[in-house]
Amino acid sequence: MSDITRYDRGLAKLIEIYGDKGSDLIASLQDIAPDLARYVTEFAFGDIHCRPGLDLKSREMATVAALTALGTAGPQLRAHIHAALNVGCTKQEIVEVIMQMALYAGFPAALNGIQAAREVFSERVQKK
Amino acid sequence: MSDITRYDRGLAKLIEIYGDKGSDLIASLQDIAPDLARYVTEFAFGDIHCRPGLDLKSREMATVAALTALGTAGPQLRAHIHAALNVGCTKQEIVEVIMQMALYAGFPAALNGIQAAREVFSERVQKK
Amino acid sequence: MSDITRYDRGLAKLIEIYGDKGSDLIASLQDIAPDLARYVTEFAFGDIHCRPGLDLKSREMATVAALTALGTAGPQLRAHIHAALNVGCTKQEIVEVIMQMALYAGFPAALNGIQAAREVFSERVQKK
Amino acid sequence: MSDITRYDRGLAKLIEIYGDKGSDLIASLQDIAPDLARYVTEFAFGDIHCRPGLDLKSREMATVAALTALGTAGPQLRAHIHAALNVGCTKQEIVEVIMQMALYAGFPAALNGIQAAREVFSERVQKK
Amino acid sequence: MSDITRYDRGLAKLIEIYGDKGSDLIASLQDIAPDLARYVTEFAFGDIHCRPGLDLKSREMATVAALTALGTAGPQLRAHIHAALNVGCTKQEIVEVIMQMALYAGFPAALNGIQAAREVFSERVQKK
Amino acid sequence: MSDITRYDRGLAKLIEIYGDKGSDLIASLQDIAPDLARYVTEFAFGDIHCRPGLDLKSREMATVAALTALGTAGPQLRAHIHAALNVGCTKQEIVEVIMQMALYAGFPAALNGIQAAREVFSERVQKK
Repeated sequence: MSDITRYDRGLAKLIEIYGDKGSDLIASLQDIAPDLARYVTEFAFGDIHCRPGLDLKSREMATVAALTALGTAGPQLRAHIHAALNVGCTKQEIVEVIMQMALYAGFPAALNGIQAAREVFSERVQKK
Repeated sequence: MSDITRYDRGLAKLIEIYGDKGSDLIASLQDIAPDLARYVTEFAFGDIHCRPGLDLKSREMATVAALTALGTAGPQLRAHIHAALNVGCTKQEIVEVIMQMALYAGFPAALNGIQAAREVFSERVQKK
Repeated sequence: MSDITRYDRGLAKLIEIYGDKGSDLIASLQDIAPDLARYVTEFAFGDIHCRPGLDLKSREMATVAALTALGTAGPQLRAHIHAALNVGCTKQEIVEVIMQMALYAGFPAALNGIQAAREVFSERVQKK
Repeated sequence: MSDITRYDRGLAKLIEIYGDKGSDLIASLQDIAPDLARYVTEFAFGDIHCRPGLDLKSREMATVAALTALGTAGPQLRAHIHAALNVGCTKQEIVEVIMQMALYAGFPAALNGIQAAREVFSERVQKK
Repeated sequence: MSDITRYDRGLAKLIEIYGDKGSDLIASLQDIAPDLARYVTEFAFGDIHCRPGLDLKSREMATVAALTALGTAGPQLRAHIHAALNVGCTKQEIVEVIMQMALYAGFPAALNGIQAAREVFSERVQKK
Repeated sequence: MSDITRYDRGLAKLIEIYGDKGSDLIASLQDIAPDLARYVTEFAFGDIHCRPGLDLKSREMATVAALTALGTAGPQLRAHIHAALNVGCTKQEIVEVIMQMALYAGFPAALNGIQAAREVFSERVQKK
């Protein structure tokens, strides 16, 4: 598969999952690191998130779990909580997976994850 | 609910998920930190893993994702890959979620996670 | 011991250590993850922080050390610097333990920990 | 070599690399942890950054790489991006080393590193 | 550029940098996660490590710095110390960059990095 | 204070705290990174661990807490569990501080810390 196809496929997947926030991310990198935007599109979305073998809901739940546990990726955690909701996860499922991280990464990680979820849930209510 | 009930409920869940490896973990802590074994049983398994709102498969996939991303918990990652298989995840699903961590925690985390999966898959084949 | 007792015991310990900030934490979780508030109260404070075998000052110093070293838990580090002062640690002891983390987690961790201490010390002066 | 010499040598190196930002860091610690300022000056700059065997450009590139990968040291990452520019690294080299961290610490680390670089590059343009 | 070209270009770069160890890594993934081997080849080596804008020596020094600081990637750190030597870094430069990590990630990270370097240096002496 | 004095003072403190294991650490670095051994002696022990303001027991408890939480420094965690015992901490206090890390860094960190303590306690029994 050619790079043009990977890029197109990735961009479609990125927008399917993130909506406008996906285009914003790509646009925000154009002035300083356009190739990083391209790699995110081609590799993260065109390669990994287009793979069969795991549905999008499971992929987003796994990502929310990992980013909550790592605790170093606030903007990305919020983006993936949006994405999890976009692909069909419920608020309860997201809260459950974040709470469970208390076991594996400690209570501060879970508490900060819940704070991120509160911000995302609140932002989406306001938009409606 | 009394602590005795939490303990009993947790122990049953621990053995449901981990089988013999669950009992081994509890036994291994009796000489040095028996209360830690009790907290794992009561809180991790009696409280969290018994919660409704998320099925066991999703809980184990989230745990495998988080422990792969953290990269500091080799024995626990292997235990949860066993657990994921025990509650019905396929090898392919486990490999998919570990591979995806390359995006969020880098290739070394994913490569070390795959190595853990290889050891677990191989151990289970030999046992049969 | 029943859960009601663990909760009551934990809430009393939480307020003994944190004062109003303890109640605020619990209240802030009620809308989104009330069970996480309950687990913090029951397990973190009712189980662990009520254990004999280590005095509260040592427990808070160990927590300040760990959260400084991890570097991923800013709000919790500030809360535990408050808590350390509440249970009798001096400002000098807190600064010493944070500075020592330069050895084990690097200068950025120590510098960010000192910045957290400055904010907490300043906030308490203003309140008086 | 006496401590006075280490301090003087370190302070000169700190100002060579960081300019005003170096003096600001030292000054900001005087009220709360003056010895930490002294250790940064003596050990980090007087000992390590004065060593032969590696040029300043390579030292700053390695630091930018490490702080991007760790993801827990935002203020220090920005300071070292300034420092890297001060000792002769180009913007392109800095962007390259941050982008490469996607491989070793994941895309969120790289994206947050790029955001830090954008802030530093923008701040320096505004000053001119 | 098509994927076939990215793969071929990546494989050539992988072998240029790692020699036999590169082929071993790819081979070791064929039974369990062949697509991860492909992504390492295409993205890590075909995309990132083939980029202009930073020479291979600087790329490997940055990688050694990051993996030493993270402390979660022992096998990959040793592989990149080999790679750094293969692309022209001296032992002294590698030791310098690892030592410097004491400042940014603490002494344990630096000490474990030095232990990794000792193993690699010793292995290469024995091979000659 | 001159460097010779810092080195001598640090070496005495290192041996006071670690005994033979201190000399072994210094000796093990002589062939590859003798200056790192010198910095450990001068800065970590001659500067930090000789500071007034915090007793050695509290310093070692804080170190055990931090290294347990980080989870990336197995050999150093074992060395500091030895050191904690050498300066007067009891086994129970060490187990308590490690168990408490379950709250702040998760159960895997605490379980791996307990395993390190078991190894150290067992090694010291065998030596008697």
